[in-house]
Amino acid sequence: MHSHSAKSEQIKSFIAMDILEAAQELRKQGRDVISFGLGEPDFQPPQCVQEACIRAIRENKTKYTHSQGLIELREAIAEHYLLKYKAHVNPDQIIVTPGTSPAFLLIFATLLEQNTEVILPNPHYPCDANFVEFFDGQVRELAIQESEDFQWNIDKVKELISEKTRALFMTSPSNPTGTVIKNEILKKLSLLGVPIVSDEIYHGLVYDGEEHSALEFSDLNFVVNGFSKAYAMTGYRLGYVISPQKFIRPMQKIQQNFIISASQFIQEAGIAALKEAGPDLERMRGEFKKRRDFMLSGLKKLGFPIHYTPQGAFYIFVKSDHLSKSSFDLSFDILNKANVAVTPGIDFGSRGEGYLRFSYATSIDRIEEGLQRIKTYIEAIS
Amino acid sequence: MHSHSAKSEQIKSFIAMDILEAAQELRKQGRDVISFGLGEPDFQPPQCVQEACIRAIRENKTKYTHSQGLIELREAIAEHYLLKYKAHVNPDQIIVTPGTSPAFLLIFATLLEQNTEVILPNPHYPCDANFVEFFDGQVRELAIQESEDFQWNIDKVKELISEKTRALFMTSPSNPTGTVIKNEILKKLSLLGVPIVSDEIYHGLVYDGEEHSALEFSDLNFVVNGFSKAYAMTGYRLGYVISPQKFIRPMQKIQQNFIISASQFIQEAGIAALKEAGPDLERMRGEFKKRRDFMLSGLKKLGFPIHYTPQGAFYIFVKSDHLSKSSFDLSFDILNKANVAVTPGIDFGSRGEGYLRFSYATSIDRIEEGLQRIKTYIEAIS
Repeated sequence: MHSHSAKSEQIKSFIAMDILEAAQELRKQGRDVISFGLGEPDFQPPQCVQEACIRAIRENKTKYTHSQGLIELREAIAEHYLLKYKAHVNPDQIIVTPGTSPAFLLIFATLLEQNTEVILPNPHYPCDANFVEFFDGQVRELAIQESEDFQWNIDKVKELISEKTRALFMTSPSNPTGTVIKNEILKKLSLLGVPIVSDEIYHGLVYDGEEHSALEFSDLNFVVNGFSKAYAMTGYRLGYVISPQKFIRPMQKIQQNFIISASQFIQEAGIAALKEAGPDLERMRGEFKKRRDFMLSGLKKLGFPIHYTPQGAFYIFVKSDHLSKSSFDLSFDILNKANVAVTPGIDFGSRGEGYLRFSYATSIDRIEEGLQRIKTYIEAIS
Repeated sequence: MHSHSAKSEQIKSFIAMDILEAAQELRKQGRDVISFGLGEPDFQPPQCVQEACIRAIRENKTKYTHSQGLIELREAIAEHYLLKYKAHVNPDQIIVTPGTSPAFLLIFATLLEQNTEVILPNPHYPCDANFVEFFDGQVRELAIQESEDFQWNIDKVKELISEKTRALFMTSPSNPTGTVIKNEILKKLSLLGVPIVSDEIYHGLVYDGEEHSALEFSDLNFVVNGFSKAYAMTGYRLGYVISPQKFIRPMQKIQQNFIISASQFIQEAGIAALKEAGPDLERMRGEFKKRRDFMLSGLKKLGFPIHYTPQGAFYIFVKSDHLSKSSFDLSFDILNKANVAVTPGIDFGSRGEGYLRFSYATSIDRIEEGLQRIKTYIEAIS
């Protein structure tokens, strides 16, 4: 038999998934494992979304759609970006995808080839580097650090830009840090002549100040967004890319070949989300804010040295090298001894070593119980 | 601004989509266009499937699933292949995807790289060549012809196989010809030491004899199948790949990065399709058979020289070079003058030139009316 392609060998797995599977194994054995590991809201999707989806199924909206997505959904997305960010988007600039992950396939297949580069922060969401390398691009890592609130340093970015640079790849609010990139930094980055690929999937989950879209500052930027996080619609698999017009046709061809279209009735649910789910979003955002405050102060009380404020998403990136130099060993030890799942920082790049990522996508009660278990764990190993 | 990647420039569009869009444009102008162009059943999905999907939404089955798909769905798929084909499949060998198209992404990203080849018939479904070339593979074309019922010729296949060959890529029943590859040919092809990537999406839509799975003859073969055609579930976007175990892990990593998982509640609908939709399938298959017989005899009466029997799918590949040497010009002329959409053979490769693909995924009444219009068209140009 033939061997696998080098590409498929090299693509990295996601340690968070390994932890998740180990946690599931422990649960099967009857253990009560608390998950601070997951990037998935514990809420149910808004009622109006569920009902719209059911209605669409009953109306037999079960056919292929235009490969870019239903025009009504694209118009609603354009309106959302106009109302929230004052960004003018033509529905023709949008391609609707089954989740945001395939949107990165479209973008990076179109932007990258041999001898191209993408600037990515370290630490970063592990798939981000995989997307780039899968399409033969090279990642140039921008060091970000807690002492600078995990913000992007413009001068350092400038040093990394070369003829080969095809994009600055940013997620704000960030996974794993929860940092919201400052407005003036986003603006300056937009003027460097290199498009930003702006992953805005955690927009709507910001607890201090306001998030801004990369589209406010340059229409050469790409935006990826969707419904999984703020709308708690992970299992719907619905996302989209907003792109400069000139890249739409090549991306659309890739979509026609490898995706065809997103599900019709799920796209209908997306329309309802944008038009009707505002109050649900506010309710969930309010709850996440409470959880963030609770977990942040709880972790500090346990002696974790946290010197920044995660303003969005549902993650806190927590220095923990006083407990173990290996974040991988530490997270498996905490899982096994304290029955709490957390994600090792090393999963997010070399500069994540010595950190743990805590997710607060679970209830206050569970957060309280989880923190208590970690307290006991720390006391036992000290 | 930077240019697009060579890959994204080179990937071909699908002329069928251009015809579709031209037909939609005419409809907007108020014209009644009959579609013999589409590869989409006109039936609604089975009631039991729709209800299962709605039930799953109501039960909040709206989360990420295992990246390979719900174990219950994978077990149902394995059982389907056991009962129908006596093929033993382990659920661990299955990855569930949002439609079959992304399944080809997983397979060819894993099998192909520079200096690899895939054997593909000419004519073929246009995306098939795009899949291969997108992952740096080269297509070696196997000439198939109507005088041999569009069957694969084993000796010709052997001539094309080299050190570089990674797969034989077969669709049976075929798009665009409707041919079902003979059982003894499939068996012999399975013994050539090169895996078959067997697109079985039109299984369940066979009107003469019985279809066989490539898994009956070798467990080194890959199968792609789904719910779009036989179950009329195009807009659900649900498919799967069955693979030799050793390729699962690299494919799963690509799935984790670029897809995450198929929608949870849609996977639940897939379980219902496999377990409950048998009578619906029989009803739809019976209707398609009537349509095939009706359209086939109708086209022959119009003087089209059809010397083979399309046994499956919902396509007839019809020699039409007595009307025009250019299938592209002919199909646009028929669309504009007769208000009937058909797909030009050239869309399916060089050996498709001089042919038109007629789809009978529409009602007998519409087929009758469409044939009448084409009769008038032929009389007018003769």
